[in-house]
Amino acid sequence: MHAEVLSVGTELLLGQTVNTDTTIVAKALSMLGIDLLYAAVVGDNPARMEDAVRQALSRSDILITTGGLGPTGDDLTKETVAAAAGRKLVLESSSYERLKEYFGENMADNQKKQAMLPEGCTVLPNDHGTAPGCAFETENGKIVIMLPGPPSELTPMLHEYVVPYLARFQDAVISSHSVHVFGRGEGAVAQMLDDLMQNSNPTAAPYAKEGEMFVRVTAKAATKEEADEMCRPVVEEIRRRIGNFVYSVDVETLEELVVQELRRTGKKLATAESCTGGLLGKRITDVSGSSEVFEMGCITYANAVKEQLLGVPHETLAAHGAVSEETARAMAEGIVRVSGADIGIGITGIAGPGGGTEEKPVGLVYIALSDGENTWVAKRMPFGRRRDREWHRHCSASKALDMVRRYLAGLPVDEK
Amino acid sequence: MHAEVLSVGTELLLGQTVNTDTTIVAKALSMLGIDLLYAAVVGDNPARMEDAVRQALSRSDILITTGGLGPTGDDLTKETVAAAAGRKLVLESSSYERLKEYFGENMADNQKKQAMLPEGCTVLPNDHGTAPGCAFETENGKIVIMLPGPPSELTPMLHEYVVPYLARFQDAVISSHSVHVFGRGEGAVAQMLDDLMQNSNPTAAPYAKEGEMFVRVTAKAATKEEADEMCRPVVEEIRRRIGNFVYSVDVETLEELVVQELRRTGKKLATAESCTGGLLGKRITDVSGSSEVFEMGCITYANAVKEQLLGVPHETLAAHGAVSEETARAMAEGIVRVSGADIGIGITGIAGPGGGTEEKPVGLVYIALSDGENTWVAKRMPFGRRRDREWHRHCSASKALDMVRRYLAGLPVDEK
Repeated sequence: MHAEVLSVGTELLLGQTVNTDTTIVAKALSMLGIDLLYAAVVGDNPARMEDAVRQALSRSDILITTGGLGPTGDDLTKETVAAAAGRKLVLESSSYERLKEYFGENMADNQKKQAMLPEGCTVLPNDHGTAPGCAFETENGKIVIMLPGPPSELTPMLHEYVVPYLARFQDAVISSHSVHVFGRGEGAVAQMLDDLMQNSNPTAAPYAKEGEMFVRVTAKAATKEEADEMCRPVVEEIRRRIGNFVYSVDVETLEELVVQELRRTGKKLATAESCTGGLLGKRITDVSGSSEVFEMGCITYANAVKEQLLGVPHETLAAHGAVSEETARAMAEGIVRVSGADIGIGITGIAGPGGGTEEKPVGLVYIALSDGENTWVAKRMPFGRRRDREWHRHCSASKALDMVRRYLAGLPVDEK
Repeated sequence: MHAEVLSVGTELLLGQTVNTDTTIVAKALSMLGIDLLYAAVVGDNPARMEDAVRQALSRSDILITTGGLGPTGDDLTKETVAAAAGRKLVLESSSYERLKEYFGENMADNQKKQAMLPEGCTVLPNDHGTAPGCAFETENGKIVIMLPGPPSELTPMLHEYVVPYLARFQDAVISSHSVHVFGRGEGAVAQMLDDLMQNSNPTAAPYAKEGEMFVRVTAKAATKEEADEMCRPVVEEIRRRIGNFVYSVDVETLEELVVQELRRTGKKLATAESCTGGLLGKRITDVSGSSEVFEMGCITYANAVKEQLLGVPHETLAAHGAVSEETARAMAEGIVRVSGADIGIGITGIAGPGGGTEEKPVGLVYIALSDGENTWVAKRMPFGRRRDREWHRHCSASKALDMVRRYLAGLPVDEK
């Protein structure tokens, strides 16, 4: 079965909104093993929308629209799609009751429009907003699904109601697993996995991700269990080849993995950040439950604060500068002392765009890990094409997280 | 003139990459006053790509493709578009020289493919990667532009070379200005501006943005100066109506505005964060040059650290709890004392998903601002639909930034 996504909304064509809906739907279809061959965007214009709907219904088995289900005059998706597919819109009573319950006394007349749905459709309830979605089959056996535009409403509706609806039509399922890698680039990994990347089931494909990469292994089989079973040996072989640089299978981020490993080992972490300015703490505390393992963080931009709060010796700063191996070391050791945590991180560097010199260029960052007894310092130097402030900050925080992961796993803390 | 964007890449249809290219191109076209009527995505499939190119050339004046210009066998955009537009591909010497310079001795044979461009085209140099773009007019007077897929290459190429190329064909320009608002929602503002939103030139349109909103005022005129002049009174009227809740015109984020105002007034800021875990520091230090005004930050998750580092009295924590007005106050006052900064922020709350109680629900956050003499505490309570951890953290940090902005401007620090 081939699908097509049609996103509706002038804001998408003005560049005011990024079309994440298509990505979210595409991912779900890919998981279901349904090929998405086209994705299109049209504005809130009935004639162009109708053309696009007719074209989609003529060339694809499944049409999924996103957006344009709301109460205002601009919201024309249901009217246009229903007309093109030869369906009447009727007031759907369960949706109308939900709307009345939601709005109470204050329901404006135009809200009622949201409960007008194609006759005989399957209602897709909106548990996070007001406009319901719907699904139906046309006389020619095409499947039409309409979803609301806001991702916070579309995403749960998709997973709760659309995936089960579509799964009925599928006789194979897809399962994917991701091997996450830090410290080896997409190109290098692709070379190591060249032979695995030639296979068609399971497939193995490398992807770049901000400052890291992952390999997605995907298998198609009759059941999810069977597909998982097919993925397993390939995932293991990839782990074996990439070795210590693999940080997880299916745990999506370094911070999640690190919080998980800190909890497992019962260790506590504290951070002292200069150039990353709180980003490392932010990423750790993005993970729910991190309060159990994250003791404290300091953002010590000013030298005086590094001295006073972390006890970085004045002489160290004077002799080597704030951006130096020695200062990073003293910061990591200082934060362990101040916090009483098991592991301390110190980060100091030049994130740019200003502040670089020939000797200490933008992108030079020292990252230290101390356990109170031993301290390791890694040096990041800019290489390859020029990168921005956000990049340097992100990669430095990632490097720190990877050092914590390696320390907890008993691996070399810094490995080239 | 009507434009159409065609994005090429199977990864877009698998949901592995969000199609930000279309958004970036759409914004630039909107600025130029060129209507974008369609945007489409196709995979790396020559037949479907050719169909899409032919359809675009038949219905639009300008076709802009993104992606598929690289050296591998999957990269078929140039071949397909050139064939559909009736152009030969030839080796373009200046691009070939650039590639040789970039790769040196190690240039693989397939890299040469990137210098194959449609005969007689305008070369769009790639200053941030290897694949050049190109632009040409077909025999039927259609404009074809091909851009590389990576946003870090596409964006500068678009602004450096494509916008000037397209501007030659335009007799009107568009100018937009954004009025940024914190503390009033999209719905409330739309009501206040109802009459202004009816006008067609300039237009005024409200947009939601994570936890805040902005109004975009857009005018079309013969010159940029004229368009700006048309926007000015509308922007002023919007400022007047929304009052203290407007935080900027054209300064895109609260953190940029706050760093700018701190620099202007010569004041220094320090932060003590609990539930936001470094996010506030991260956002402030996202702004280049923030080191001049950001003294230090503490991420004090544990109660012991709040006591020890910030001097929050043990009795305060015991009597009122970590999430309380009193603790927020003591944190803000403590960080001013510790850092010697002019302004201190204390944030404590429950970001969720765990940790909420009936009395102190997820989303309850106290935000305090102290200048050493006076302290103000704002209370955020969850309302409306259920929000996630990221949302509560983001909005709490925004609220803190808005309090700093208000303090520096001599406005009420917390206004309902």
